Amino acid sequence: MKTIRTIEAAGYVGEPVRLRGWLQNVRRLGGITFLVLRDGYGTIQAVTEDDADIAAALTVGLESVIELRGVVVTSDQAPGGIELYQPSVTMITPIQVTPPAPLHKKQLNAAVPTLLDHAVVLNRHPQRRALFKLAAAAMAGFRATLNSQGFTEIQTPKMVASATEGGANVFKIAYFGREAYLAQSPQFYKQMMVGVFERVYEVGPVFRAEPHNTTRHLNQYVSLDVEFGFIEDHFTVMAMARTVIAGIMDTLAQQGSTELALLGAALPVVPETIPHIHFAAAQDLILERHGVDVRGEPDLSPQDERWLGEWAKEVHGSDFLFVTGYPMSKRPFYTHLDEARPQYSNSFDLLFRGLELITGGQRLHRYEQYLAALDKANLPVEPFATYLEAFKYGMPPHGGFAIGLERLLMQLLNLPNIKLTTLFPRDMQRLTP
Amino acid sequence: MKTIRTIEAAGYVGEPVRLRGWLQNVRRLGGITFLVLRDGYGTIQAVTEDDADIAAALTVGLESVIELRGVVVTSDQAPGGIELYQPSVTMITPIQVTPPAPLHKKQLNAAVPTLLDHAVVLNRHPQRRALFKLAAAAMAGFRATLNSQGFTEIQTPKMVASATEGGANVFKIAYFGREAYLAQSPQFYKQMMVGVFERVYEVGPVFRAEPHNTTRHLNQYVSLDVEFGFIEDHFTVMAMARTVIAGIMDTLAQQGSTELALLGAALPVVPETIPHIHFAAAQDLILERHGVDVRGEPDLSPQDERWLGEWAKEVHGSDFLFVTGYPMSKRPFYTHLDEARPQYSNSFDLLFRGLELITGGQRLHRYEQYLAALDKANLPVEPFATYLEAFKYGMPPHGGFAIGLERLLMQLLNLPNIKLTTLFPRDMQRLTP
Repeated sequence: MKTIRTIEAAGYVGEPVRLRGWLQNVRRLGGITFLVLRDGYGTIQAVTEDDADIAAALTVGLESVIELRGVVVTSDQAPGGIELYQPSVTMITPIQVTPPAPLHKKQLNAAVPTLLDHAVVLNRHPQRRALFKLAAAAMAGFRATLNSQGFTEIQTPKMVASATEGGANVFKIAYFGREAYLAQSPQFYKQMMVGVFERVYEVGPVFRAEPHNTTRHLNQYVSLDVEFGFIEDHFTVMAMARTVIAGIMDTLAQQGSTELALLGAALPVVPETIPHIHFAAAQDLILERHGVDVRGEPDLSPQDERWLGEWAKEVHGSDFLFVTGYPMSKRPFYTHLDEARPQYSNSFDLLFRGLELITGGQRLHRYEQYLAALDKANLPVEPFATYLEAFKYGMPPHGGFAIGLERLLMQLLNLPNIKLTTLFPRDMQRLTP
Repeated sequence: MKTIRTIEAAGYVGEPVRLRGWLQNVRRLGGITFLVLRDGYGTIQAVTEDDADIAAALTVGLESVIELRGVVVTSDQAPGGIELYQPSVTMITPIQVTPPAPLHKKQLNAAVPTLLDHAVVLNRHPQRRALFKLAAAAMAGFRATLNSQGFTEIQTPKMVASATEGGANVFKIAYFGREAYLAQSPQFYKQMMVGVFERVYEVGPVFRAEPHNTTRHLNQYVSLDVEFGFIEDHFTVMAMARTVIAGIMDTLAQQGSTELALLGAALPVVPETIPHIHFAAAQDLILERHGVDVRGEPDLSPQDERWLGEWAKEVHGSDFLFVTGYPMSKRPFYTHLDEARPQYSNSFDLLFRGLELITGGQRLHRYEQYLAALDKANLPVEPFATYLEAFKYGMPPHGGFAIGLERLLMQLLNLPNIKLTTLFPRDMQRLTP
C-alpha cells in the first residue's frame, strides 16, 4: 500500500492508500461519520457508516497524530471531490488536551495575543499555514528573479562593531568582553560586495530595537536586500525594484494560488512602469487634495502615505507608487544627493497600497564623498574604516533597496497587525515562543 | 553599442561592445599593451599596439573602475580564446592607492590575517570570488533539493529567551531591560514547525560564543537546517541527509564547474548508500587499527574522526561516513534514545573527509518524554514551556540535521582555516570588517 500526501490523493482513485497526519476533525451527520486528516500539505476526509472502522480516533483529542488507511473515491459532496472509503485508523501520538483555539473551523477565531502566545500550535491552522507558505514563495520569487538578473547571494555578519544606520535603536551584545551590536541591516556589507560581484542580494534577519509597540513594526524581521553597481541614478534602482516585485508576484501566482484563494487575497497588478512622484510634488498634492499643508516636513507621515496611495490608485490605477527625492536631512549619510537640487536625494520609497514597502536609492561611491558626508553628519571616520576601505579601492556608481518581507505580506493580505505575518514575532514584551 | 558582461563576449565576435568593471591589470610585452578588465562575472583582455587608445587607464592605479569599449575577436593566445581589439577606455572611478595584496596575480598570496583584515578588497580576487560563488551554489542546491522533497522554507527568531543547546557558549543581548540570547541554532523552532508543515528547512546565521580561536570554529556561521516528521528512526534522517548532500554536489557540478576548476577542487562522489558505523564499533576499530584505546570516551576526538575518515576511504572508497549511536550522555536532552541500547542514542554525525560536517538524529516526540528528559538533565521545565507546547498538541516521530556551510566549503576546498570560507568572519578578536 502506498503512503501518499493528501494533495496526491486525486491521482490514486480506486486504490487503497495510507496517509499520516493530524486528526483535524471528527463529525457525525445522519448516521455517517466524517474524519478529517490534515498533513503538511492539505486535508482529506474519510467517510464511514461504521464507527468501529475509526474507533482509535474517537477516544482521543483533535490534533492527535494518526495513520489513516482507506480507498480513494471521487465524491461530488467531498471537499476537492475526493474522499476515503473503508477507512481504518492507527494511533501514532494520542493527545487528550484541547488546543487554545479550534483548529478545525474554517476561520481561525482568536484574539491577536492568543494567536501570538500560542503560535506554536495555532500556526497549524490552514489560514496560518497559507500565509507562511506565501512567505516562502515570496522569498523563492525574490531569489529566482535576482538569480536571473546575474545577482549572487551573500550572507553577512549580524554582530557588528558599529550601528549601521546610526540612532539608538540597536540591540547591544556582550562580545567577549566588548560591546557589539546586532545588525540593523546588511547595508554596509552589501555595498562592499558590489566591489566583488557587482550584483548581490541577501535574505536574512535584521534587528531593530525600536522601543514602541505598533501594528507595523517588528523588532526582528526578514529583509530582502539588493545592491548593484553601474547604475545611472536611483531610477535604475527603481526599475530593478519593479522587476523584483513583479517577479515575486509572478511566483506567488504560480506557487501560491491555493493559499491566496484560501485567504481571499488578490494579487496586485504590477504596472510595466510604476508611477513616480517627487517628494516635493507629493507634498503639494496633499495640500491640493486634502487641504493639509505638510510642505517643509522632512518626511511623509503614515497618513501622507495613505493619501498618496489613494491618489496612485485613483489616477494611475496602480497599487504601487514610487516617491522619489526624499530630503537629504532624513536620509543616512551614504545617500547620494540630487545634483540639481542638493537638498533632495537620489532616493525613493515604494508605497504599496499606501504603506512604505521598499526603501532604496543611489549611494555615494567615491572615498572623498564619504569623508565629506561623515564630516557633514558629525560622525567620526574611525568606526567606518573597514566600510570606507571598499571605496578607497574603486567602486562604481551603485544603489540598492530593501523589501520588508512581513510588510509585503501584511499589505498583500490586508492584515491589521504585522505581528501576524511572522511565525514567532519579537516585540518589546515578546521573547517567546 | 551593446553593454555586455565579460562572460558574454564570446557571443559577440566581430561586434563592438562596451564593458564596465575594474582595471585588473595592465602589462606590456614586446610593444603590445594588454589591459585586463574584471567585472562581477569574469575577466577579459584588451590588446593594443597604441597606448593612446587606453591612455586613461595608464595613469591610474589598478582597481580603478573603468568603461572599456572594443571589438570582440577570437585569439588563440587569449585566455578563453577571446579578446578586445581597438580598445578605448573611459574612467569611471580613478584610484591611486595600491591594494594590500596584488589582485592581478593568479594566486592570491597573503597571510590569513591580511586576508581577513582586508577582506573588503581582497575578496575581489578571482580565487576568493570562486569560493563565495560556490557558497551561493551550495545554498541554492540545498534549497532546491528540499523543495523537491516537499519541504517548506522558514525563518525563525534569532533573539531567544533561553539557550537552545544549554552550555555557556551563548551571546547575551540587552532586550528592553531584560536579558536575552542569540540563537545557537533554530533547533526548537524547526521542531515546532514539523507540527505545522511536516517538513521544514532554514538557511540562516547561528551564533556560538565559543571562547577559543581554532581553525575550525566560527562565532557566527551559516547553518543549513532540516527537520521532518513521520520517520522510522535516525536512518530515515540519514537517508535524507544523503539526498541533500548529493543534491548540493549536483548543483555545485552544474553551477560551479568553472569555480571548482579555478580552485583545483574535485567534487566527491556521494555513494548511493553512505557507509555507516556505530559509535562503539568505531571506537573498537580505532583500537584495532591504531592501537589507541578510546573506548569509554563519550565523544570522538578530531583525531578519531580523521582516522575514521581514512578508514571509510580505504575500505569503502567513500569520502563520507555516518557514525551512529553517539552516547546519550553527550547529546542534548531532546535526543531520542536507542531502545535496544539505552545508553546510546538514535543520532548520527556525517564525517566528510574525516571532519564532522552534519549532526543529526531522531528527537523525542511525546510530551511526557520531554518532561522525563528535562528532569533527567536537571533542567527546569519553565524556560522550555512554549517549546513543549508543540508536543502537548501532538507531534509525530521526527528528526533532522544541520549542515555547517563553512565546514562543507573548508573540506571541499581543503582549506587550512574555516575563517577563509566566509566573507567577513567573526572570531574572538574580529568584529570588523
